[in-house]
Amino acid sequence: MPRVIDHDERRRQIVAAARQLMEEGGLTAATMRAIASEAGFANGALKHYFDGKDAVILATFENVFAEMTERARPSDEVADPVEQLRAFMYAAFPLDERGIASARVLFALWEYSQTNAVLLERYLQQLRIWERELAERLIAVHGETPGDDLRAIVDEAVTMSIGANVVSVLLPEDVVIARYTRYVDDFVADFAVAPQGR
Amino acid sequence: MPRVIDHDERRRQIVAAARQLMEEGGLTAATMRAIASEAGFANGALKHYFDGKDAVILATFENVFAEMTERARPSDEVADPVEQLRAFMYAAFPLDERGIASARVLFALWEYSQTNAVLLERYLQQLRIWERELAERLIAVHGETPGDDLRAIVDEAVTMSIGANVVSVLLPEDVVIARYTRYVDDFVADFAVAPQGR
Repeated sequence: MPRVIDHDERRRQIVAAARQLMEEGGLTAATMRAIASEAGFANGALKHYFDGKDAVILATFENVFAEMTERARPSDEVADPVEQLRAFMYAAFPLDERGIASARVLFALWEYSQTNAVLLERYLQQLRIWERELAERLIAVHGETPGDDLRAIVDEAVTMSIGANVVSVLLPEDVVIARYTRYVDDFVADFAVAPQGR
Repeated sequence: MPRVIDHDERRRQIVAAARQLMEEGGLTAATMRAIASEAGFANGALKHYFDGKDAVILATFENVFAEMTERARPSDEVADPVEQLRAFMYAAFPLDERGIASARVLFALWEYSQTNAVLLERYLQQLRIWERELAERLIAVHGETPGDDLRAIVDEAVTMSIGANVVSVLLPEDVVIARYTRYVDDFVADFAVAPQGR
């Protein structure tokens, strides 16, 4: 009796396989052949679900974006704006095993984005969404901040988060977690006291 | 009459070719075949000068490290410790066309380092040298700073510089230069006033 697995479920399996390969071996590990094998498909079968490798890659990054957005979302139980800001920052930094695994995928994303304009545009769109959400949480903590200062603070946080993700694939996990937990906690504490003093 | 070109000069040509290819096309562009072609060698001739691709890659990054170290060195004319600190930071950030071109090579370095332990160790050694130099310049500006705070400031500057290099290959050049020139100027000004207030 044939197993019934719908089209969307198969796409999810393929994306999960691509992501797993990128987490383990970076960009070069995620060939179409390897993705098919990891997902348990015959080589060549992926074309029934994705229109080429670029489409698999884009869907994989959509999956990462969705997960990061989900992690950064404030829980309904957390009402304190400072804790909401901290939760958002924690989600953007590689502060646990899951986050460090995602860093390798982000690394592949930046690499692809250099030569794939569609993916770059999608990533920059996502960055703008996260930047706006961060700005909203900063304002919730400290009221209106002059736009120029707010922009500089958001830019710093985003750049630090990108740098921390690179560092997380190079240095030992405990060093990475200790260093960037301290950074985020200091960032949140400093901003709560004096946003323009940074 | 045969041209006399010495061994070291040919190695330099090969490294320059590898670097040029990485700047233009990232990691995947720098195949041994492409490097040989760009350097004007017959395919296969590289083996007289380098013991395999890993050796070419390592020599290419040594070249980048040497250039960055050279750019960061204080000019004899600049005596003001604040300006020496600024010069060091400027050299670490992608603030001109040259720096942005180097960012693509750094990107390739981080990618290789994930799977090449020799290169990773060499890069981490270089990072420690730069971190020590930055710490010395920070101390020159503001006298002794508690070790823990100094460490956090150095870690922040290094992480920001890595993040800025990633951003520089994704966003337009003018945005990158304006954003990180402001960051570095603010960093230097803030530190000169109150190192522990950050």
